[in-house]
Amino acid sequence: MLTPQLYGAIEAGGTKFVCAAARDVDDTATETRIPTTTPARTLRDVTEFFAAAAAELGRFDAFGIASFGPVDLNRASPTFGQILATPKPGWSHTDLVTPLAQRFECPVRIDTDVNAAALAEASRGAGDLFGTLVYVTVGTGIGGGAFVNGETLKGLLHPEMGHTRVVRDARDGDFPGICPFHGDCLEGLASGPAMQARWRQPAEDLPEDHPGWALEARYLALALVTFVCTLSPQRIIMGGGVMSKPLLFPLIRSHVLELLNNYVRAPELLQQIDSFIVPPALGHRAGALGGLALAADAVRAPLRSELTADR
Amino acid sequence: MLTPQLYGAIEAGGTKFVCAAARDVDDTATETRIPTTTPARTLRDVTEFFAAAAAELGRFDAFGIASFGPVDLNRASPTFGQILATPKPGWSHTDLVTPLAQRFECPVRIDTDVNAAALAEASRGAGDLFGTLVYVTVGTGIGGGAFVNGETLKGLLHPEMGHTRVVRDARDGDFPGICPFHGDCLEGLASGPAMQARWRQPAEDLPEDHPGWALEARYLALALVTFVCTLSPQRIIMGGGVMSKPLLFPLIRSHVLELLNNYVRAPELLQQIDSFIVPPALGHRAGALGGLALAADAVRAPLRSELTADR
Repeated sequence: MLTPQLYGAIEAGGTKFVCAAARDVDDTATETRIPTTTPARTLRDVTEFFAAAAAELGRFDAFGIASFGPVDLNRASPTFGQILATPKPGWSHTDLVTPLAQRFECPVRIDTDVNAAALAEASRGAGDLFGTLVYVTVGTGIGGGAFVNGETLKGLLHPEMGHTRVVRDARDGDFPGICPFHGDCLEGLASGPAMQARWRQPAEDLPEDHPGWALEARYLALALVTFVCTLSPQRIIMGGGVMSKPLLFPLIRSHVLELLNNYVRAPELLQQIDSFIVPPALGHRAGALGGLALAADAVRAPLRSELTADR
Repeated sequence: MLTPQLYGAIEAGGTKFVCAAARDVDDTATETRIPTTTPARTLRDVTEFFAAAAAELGRFDAFGIASFGPVDLNRASPTFGQILATPKPGWSHTDLVTPLAQRFECPVRIDTDVNAAALAEASRGAGDLFGTLVYVTVGTGIGGGAFVNGETLKGLLHPEMGHTRVVRDARDGDFPGICPFHGDCLEGLASGPAMQARWRQPAEDLPEDHPGWALEARYLALALVTFVCTLSPQRIIMGGGVMSKPLLFPLIRSHVLELLNNYVRAPELLQQIDSFIVPPALGHRAGALGGLALAADAVRAPLRSELTADR
């Protein structure tokens, strides 16, 4: 192809929408941050940003939206592309896809932010090698996405890995967990706000020798072992604010090996765990690049429903 | 195609190899059971059975092996098709694929028994509808396989769902679990032998009002909730000896709904759980038909490495 593609990428988050018009992953000239206020206002500002970008750069070939959840990813569903019931005021049943598809008349892919990040990380790897990978983010919440058999993982809805139950640690006393749905699921015990509730200070303020980090590593390792037993990933990528504490990685790796106890005898795990449980190769841009990876995928491997769109 | 295909199907188990030569799933005329003794003897008998079938029925188009694990499923690996380190005497590093591929000069697919059963069940469903499903067997051990994005789930190795950790139940006292690797993982707490160790009688002898069934349903439900949060399946199929107790299904379904606590708001789960957690549509033949499904898939969607085989 002689003309490079033009992609619209959106990272739709609870506090801001990061929007970019780009020709490839290294092209970040045209980017903006729009606060997440009401759906009408936020989506109007998003559309206006991309309209101005199109006036300057040309026609968009595809959009990718890496969204907070829950979101309907089933293209056959009447509510495809909508945010589902969410505690975020006003955003339940907001359609993120149709306004862009109608305005810019091109394919619009949508996925969860963590699935999109998994896709972005997988697209950087060497094809077969990273065929199955899990992307976990540990911050205000805990989310997980995956790339499996050439696509992101979805089905009934999309993964909700943060709500996996984990075995309570004796050191955790009677801390009830903070998940409003499940109390002491993974997110209830190991998200940033859970650490803050348990230790009565923000996670980032805990000193490196605080016992909170050993407990945090244990809970996250229990969850990773569950993901290994369930999904058999070739790599687990961990991002998010809490994971910016580098001491967590070696602690988590050693707990994972101890918990598996030599059961899954893969050299990638037993001998190379430093490259099995890793921070994002794309660094803090993994999330933002998720939307771009989705858009690029729509051009690279269009779905039948995208090909029949009126272009 | 005018000539119907001829498939060789093997369910390779710890006590017997069930072998069948068949033209479709309803064709079971040519079938045999070969005891699992030594690799050399068992594989010789298997090969002789299929050689006799070929003399009678014609050339095989493909073989499918649904195997006990752990087994190397990575076609790029030098040990592809081999049973990996197993406590089963003599079987570690046995190559199941090469003897058939060399003798019958056709593609040989191999997968875990539970992944193959997931494929067999998915192939019976209406395409898209059952795009993501999990197959769990609860018997002497607990195993899980999945069908995701058009293929069975594999990566680092293959899923080991039976070794997922589950939260201990207060009713379970200090029962340590029977898994030699993990003690009280799912298999350690909820397999048939775990029930027998806990209650000092075979699971099938426990009366319907025995408290063991409520505990069993609780542990299995905890695992299914993990699979829902991790894999987001559109259906979970439960087979195996322990699941032949029909009272388990309604107990498990009600625990799953209680544990999810309305978090995953999919109508298939909230309103139609009787068709979300189900026994195998293929009944007790799900395992045996797994090998057939693998062979049929090799003909329907050949891999590049299969096409370049010297035929």
